[in-house]
Amino acid sequence: MPLLPSLGAALRTIFPADGLAVDDATRAAYAYDNSRRVALPDAVVFPTAHEQVVALVQACREARVPLIARGRGTNTTGATVPDGGGVVAGFERMNRILAIEPGNRLAVVEPGVLNGDLQRALQQHGLFWPPDPTSAPYCTIGGNLACNAGGPRAVKYGATRDNVLGLRVVAGNGQSFHCGTHTTKGSVGYDLTRFIIGSEGTLALVTEATLKLTPKPPAIRTLRAAYRDVESAAEAVARIMAQPVTPCALEFMDDAALRLARGHGGDAPADAGALLLIEVDGAQDALDAAAAAVEDAARVDGLLEWRGARDAAESAALWDARKALSPALRTISPHKINEDVVVPVSRVPELVARLRRLAREYDLPIVSFGHAGNGNLHVNLLPRDDAERGRAHACLAEVFRAVIELDGTLSGEHGIGTAKRDFMAQAVDAGALATMHGIKRAFDPEGILNPGKLLPAVAG
Amino acid sequence: MPLLPSLGAALRTIFPADGLAVDDATRAAYAYDNSRRVALPDAVVFPTAHEQVVALVQACREARVPLIARGRGTNTTGATVPDGGGVVAGFERMNRILAIEPGNRLAVVEPGVLNGDLQRALQQHGLFWPPDPTSAPYCTIGGNLACNAGGPRAVKYGATRDNVLGLRVVAGNGQSFHCGTHTTKGSVGYDLTRFIIGSEGTLALVTEATLKLTPKPPAIRTLRAAYRDVESAAEAVARIMAQPVTPCALEFMDDAALRLARGHGGDAPADAGALLLIEVDGAQDALDAAAAAVEDAARVDGLLEWRGARDAAESAALWDARKALSPALRTISPHKINEDVVVPVSRVPELVARLRRLAREYDLPIVSFGHAGNGNLHVNLLPRDDAERGRAHACLAEVFRAVIELDGTLSGEHGIGTAKRDFMAQAVDAGALATMHGIKRAFDPEGILNPGKLLPAVAG
Repeated sequence: MPLLPSLGAALRTIFPADGLAVDDATRAAYAYDNSRRVALPDAVVFPTAHEQVVALVQACREARVPLIARGRGTNTTGATVPDGGGVVAGFERMNRILAIEPGNRLAVVEPGVLNGDLQRALQQHGLFWPPDPTSAPYCTIGGNLACNAGGPRAVKYGATRDNVLGLRVVAGNGQSFHCGTHTTKGSVGYDLTRFIIGSEGTLALVTEATLKLTPKPPAIRTLRAAYRDVESAAEAVARIMAQPVTPCALEFMDDAALRLARGHGGDAPADAGALLLIEVDGAQDALDAAAAAVEDAARVDGLLEWRGARDAAESAALWDARKALSPALRTISPHKINEDVVVPVSRVPELVARLRRLAREYDLPIVSFGHAGNGNLHVNLLPRDDAERGRAHACLAEVFRAVIELDGTLSGEHGIGTAKRDFMAQAVDAGALATMHGIKRAFDPEGILNPGKLLPAVAG
Repeated sequence: MPLLPSLGAALRTIFPADGLAVDDATRAAYAYDNSRRVALPDAVVFPTAHEQVVALVQACREARVPLIARGRGTNTTGATVPDGGGVVAGFERMNRILAIEPGNRLAVVEPGVLNGDLQRALQQHGLFWPPDPTSAPYCTIGGNLACNAGGPRAVKYGATRDNVLGLRVVAGNGQSFHCGTHTTKGSVGYDLTRFIIGSEGTLALVTEATLKLTPKPPAIRTLRAAYRDVESAAEAVARIMAQPVTPCALEFMDDAALRLARGHGGDAPADAGALLLIEVDGAQDALDAAAAAVEDAARVDGLLEWRGARDAAESAALWDARKALSPALRTISPHKINEDVVVPVSRVPELVARLRRLAREYDLPIVSFGHAGNGNLHVNLLPRDDAERGRAHACLAEVFRAVIELDGTLSGEHGIGTAKRDFMAQAVDAGALATMHGIKRAFDPEGILNPGKLLPAVAG
């Protein structure tokens, strides 16, 4: 759909030179995300300043044209795909780290800064920003904010929403404001900051974020526990999280994930049916005791081998094998369905057992791994042909049903987008959905911001 | 103002027997909070079940009568005073701990549970809930949720908003729902949970909360640093927070607070002009190193004495002296103005210097103490007569101006209520206030929930 001439003229004024693109090649490059959904935008703009974003929202409101914010498109849910056309705002040029204040443990960044670039800049100050999705080297802080990204460290340090102090935004209603604080504590009115985090671009566009930083622990130790089967590993996860030493990573791989990992440098014992990759951090003097406490909890019936990484290189190799899993699965099954369901940690053993039953019942490969310390598993359904694709969708509904029955929820860190939108009513009370719709209208009365994402169409 | 007969009849049906009170004595008992503001409600009800709260909100909506939720009224901002009459809902009878799940590190409670009672119940499980206001023995979890309560431990473990997973609520629009999760991670729609926390009863009434629990550290050590003057102590605070070991308490007392504390068992050196009370926690083996790291940072010019508490009794005595300060100030000056401003930690020295200048300029006693590790100081203006009361109000505006200039904010943990409502426009951007007003209308279109609190009257 070509741009309305009036909107085109307005965008040309706001975004001179190469700040606006309407050519086919650029539009195609901004038509997809890691969900593999594709829909062409009518135009792509590249803001470099807050004031441009104010004018952009105003122009799209007047034209009633969808406006979709985009970082680097690494999300898996279709949240940045312009399903109904409209304007994609690519924030990659707003990529400045505006301030690092080590004494206040905060950094102020533009949304297009890459997570990995920020971490590198923080290193010399002995600080880090906890969210560490697998895509960290090439995903943006703005994207992390949009979907409340997590990662392995979230089990100890929280996800994005736990690590942000304030934002500068332009809401869908045209209001431009700072919210939150430049302090580590505050109780001054409604918490717009955390409300906007995780809203997937449906409420406001973020132009600046004040991030809460954490001191880097002086020492870290990587441990590995191999189990006979997934049931015993899941049992160990629940026991580890029930004792006081919180690991800074507690990753699970089932038997199928383990076989894959072997192809990427993993070297688990041949008879292992599941593996836990565990890290503890803290003062050097405290690591022996911390590792021992975790080992005590991890020693359940079915433990085959317990050992520490011999050195930093081995630790890196273990992580490489873990992080290779997600792309490797895509290679095996281009149509993989990757969910990131969450259950209470005590129910992880039940979830694992139910997933195995479902795999048998639907005769479908299911590979599970992920952030078990939060009860957050990446459940990958891997259809290999059209018949299996059909069964996979039916099976997915059963996975979600199981998760809800186990007091869990649909997503730990990927968000909803369009991929899980139709399951929202299963996971969220009708009254809560109606209230979310009401708030959406307050933020974005014309409904221009990322329409069709996150909230199911009905209710309200 | 007598109750509308139709509302009276509805309340009588919803709250049989002593669930409803309209007598003068009961109304007087629910007319005030720790702000010492007083306004009589027309009726007081005591819900014992969620369904009663649903019916209560419905009845008040139909009658367009204010509905004010109340825990134990320990807040300092007037947030629970029924300024315009109406119905006070006292949640003290919804005081059951519904579940403690140690393996999932969570507890489910009704809002009337006392913070202190919960902590006692958690002790046997080796867990605690981080918010620890001075009023913990007699304040409710519901009140903690309403004003995003903090306390000394917040510097390491966060305030209320950081330690809640989910809520069950009745919104002002009559919608009844669960929000949040029963898991430690989630990215499923807008975060209603944290938005309602800190909203001071203006959006929804909470009938159940799922609290995130933290393992009790195995060991804790109390340290004390005495300084020649407030400037050197403030400098030490900034240095302590700039190094990696985060204390689990970092409390500051200025010279006037110190003199008061001496009357309550404090025994700081006679020439000390300021004191820091510091705690570090963690594995027993790690405490020596942690204490040494903090001591290194605390050794600035002006340090007079550094020592650890000799035993648990001495540690308790130090805390008793600290916790006696707030009530003791009330005795000295019944009209004390107690603010809980926050500045970035690096600006604490500037804040302390400016407060001293203001005390001289306005010829007014100002006593400051509090949670310095968060930059959160309780600044007490202590007028002794009418002339000083007049000056105190002018001085207060200057305190807020200084705080905003230092990139700080109005409240760290007490909230806004009516006490700071008129300063909100100084601290919060107009666009953010307008958006807050819009969301308030979505939650509570008739404006029945705690009207006149938190948001300034204009804007929108």
